[in-house]
Amino acid sequence: MPEWPSRLQWGVSEDELVAALARIFGQRAPTSGAVQLGIGDDAAVLAPSAASAVLSVDAAIEGVHFRFEYASPEQLGARAFRAAASDLAAMGATPTAALISLALPPSRREVILSLAEGLADAAHACDCPVIGGNVSRASEVSIHTTVMGAHPPSRPLLTRAGARVDDGVWVTGTLGAAALGLAAIQQGRESEDEFARFVQRWREGRAQLALGRELLGVATACLDVSDGLLRDARRMAIASGVTLAIDADALPLEPAHHRGAERLALDPLALALSGGEDYELLFTAPASFSPPWATRIGAVHASTNAPLEVRLAGALLPLEHLGHDHFG
Amino acid sequence: MPEWPSRLQWGVSEDELVAALARIFGQRAPTSGAVQLGIGDDAAVLAPSAASAVLSVDAAIEGVHFRFEYASPEQLGARAFRAAASDLAAMGATPTAALISLALPPSRREVILSLAEGLADAAHACDCPVIGGNVSRASEVSIHTTVMGAHPPSRPLLTRAGARVDDGVWVTGTLGAAALGLAAIQQGRESEDEFARFVQRWREGRAQLALGRELLGVATACLDVSDGLLRDARRMAIASGVTLAIDADALPLEPAHHRGAERLALDPLALALSGGEDYELLFTAPASFSPPWATRIGAVHASTNAPLEVRLAGALLPLEHLGHDHFG
Repeated sequence: MPEWPSRLQWGVSEDELVAALARIFGQRAPTSGAVQLGIGDDAAVLAPSAASAVLSVDAAIEGVHFRFEYASPEQLGARAFRAAASDLAAMGATPTAALISLALPPSRREVILSLAEGLADAAHACDCPVIGGNVSRASEVSIHTTVMGAHPPSRPLLTRAGARVDDGVWVTGTLGAAALGLAAIQQGRESEDEFARFVQRWREGRAQLALGRELLGVATACLDVSDGLLRDARRMAIASGVTLAIDADALPLEPAHHRGAERLALDPLALALSGGEDYELLFTAPASFSPPWATRIGAVHASTNAPLEVRLAGALLPLEHLGHDHFG
Repeated sequence: MPEWPSRLQWGVSEDELVAALARIFGQRAPTSGAVQLGIGDDAAVLAPSAASAVLSVDAAIEGVHFRFEYASPEQLGARAFRAAASDLAAMGATPTAALISLALPPSRREVILSLAEGLADAAHACDCPVIGGNVSRASEVSIHTTVMGAHPPSRPLLTRAGARVDDGVWVTGTLGAAALGLAAIQQGRESEDEFARFVQRWREGRAQLALGRELLGVATACLDVSDGLLRDARRMAIASGVTLAIDADALPLEPAHHRGAERLALDPLALALSGGEDYELLFTAPASFSPPWATRIGAVHASTNAPLEVRLAGALLPLEHLGHDHFG
């Protein structure tokens, strides 16, 4: 026989590993109700639902999205799940089930069960059973998470394409905090008290599911800020065929943002505009909507040559100096 | 700013690449009918369905499941899709939608659109729109395919756990052909005429969707043979709590199987019993069911110490000599 490309080649067999993973996911998500068949067969089965099904897939890849020095395996698993669930939050959907495709080298076999514990905990916290998955050998660790959610058919869909002229532009939470936390970790300063809150923001990730549901039927457009405000706001503007005018003085920042950025020799404004992985919701809504749990950062204008206009103290900012072009 | 872990770092921007992929998948699967929202937003949306939803995820990883020397990128993409769809075939489900998470190094950027063309063609051939996906940088190419299918709620589920004593054991198609084809490729003999059919079997992959549907309500258990007959039959036996007695003399083989195996210095029986990636359906059914499109290879017995008993010319085969223990 030729050397056969077995799916896994290490101490425990694939079946044993799959059984251990099935226990971890199954303990927190017993088969019941909507789940007609859970982990363990060729596929899982969900009962018919009166809701529309909302589906997204997200990847977390070692060396690209995370390193094992940055957080515990449990934290890395949990934040991978939340990053995937954040796409459902941006649609106002409620997670109903997840499938997880894990790939990893045999040398990392000690972390897979811890990653799975973190994934399972985060999924359980959203009442989202992990109903299936796959495990493969690979040269680096990666986690590909498919999340399925429910959208009530009586409500209009919440997409990134509905922003209307004269709408307000809003964002939940604070911006740039996760990027600042990651920089603190990368500079070896994660144990300093003044960075604790930022480090926690990066390590935990976030999925604003409850706030996303509040936006259904109210907001005109929404997406989650995963690649930095400028980049994601530009996507919303292009999808909606409008220009988003952002007031950089209005951006919501953590109280210690400026001081923290300066200590790390980073530009506080660039962090807020271009830092990634905040997983807050950027949305547009009619002027009549003014929620206390979000910050108004601008307005929707009729489309001009530029999808984005960002002003600081009234003056237009040259976006190419803020890392925007760097991301494409 | 620290070096930011951008999702992709190469010539074209991520947005341009995503747009190119969306065109490839969208051309073959226009948004209509059940697809309320396709590729391009934070998530896709499917209309409510009266059918149960059948869900599975499968991975194809460079260096583990394939090498680019083994086939064209289009073929590799298509077989990755079919391998995922094969899990739905084993449930008797009809594919309804797919999401694809692609990861690849910048040095492979020339193949991603060809991989996507192959994936899209294979999905289109199953009337299965690709409604979402993700693209990430990674150090090797991997394709993680989530497939969703429909199960008619009036029919019982078709799982691997329902085999009953005195049922017949059946398999569709032929066994060991894909493994023989892969061996021919690995030995550099793929252009020889006598291996053409085997090489094609490996390169195309397979998803026996129509035959799977024929089994709904008739077969008692089913799975797809992806890791070799012995390994997969053992899984069915354990899940069902029975012993599967297999007659090795009855295994369906390609007419040129023995000759081809000998030319490659391989054991023809080991190929048939342990060769992987045939993607045929192994199923059990009452004695009254005798379809012309499958081969009866054994019977279901009450559980003994061994989940599997394989006989050749009436004598029990020692399975540890056939690679079975090697796989777990």
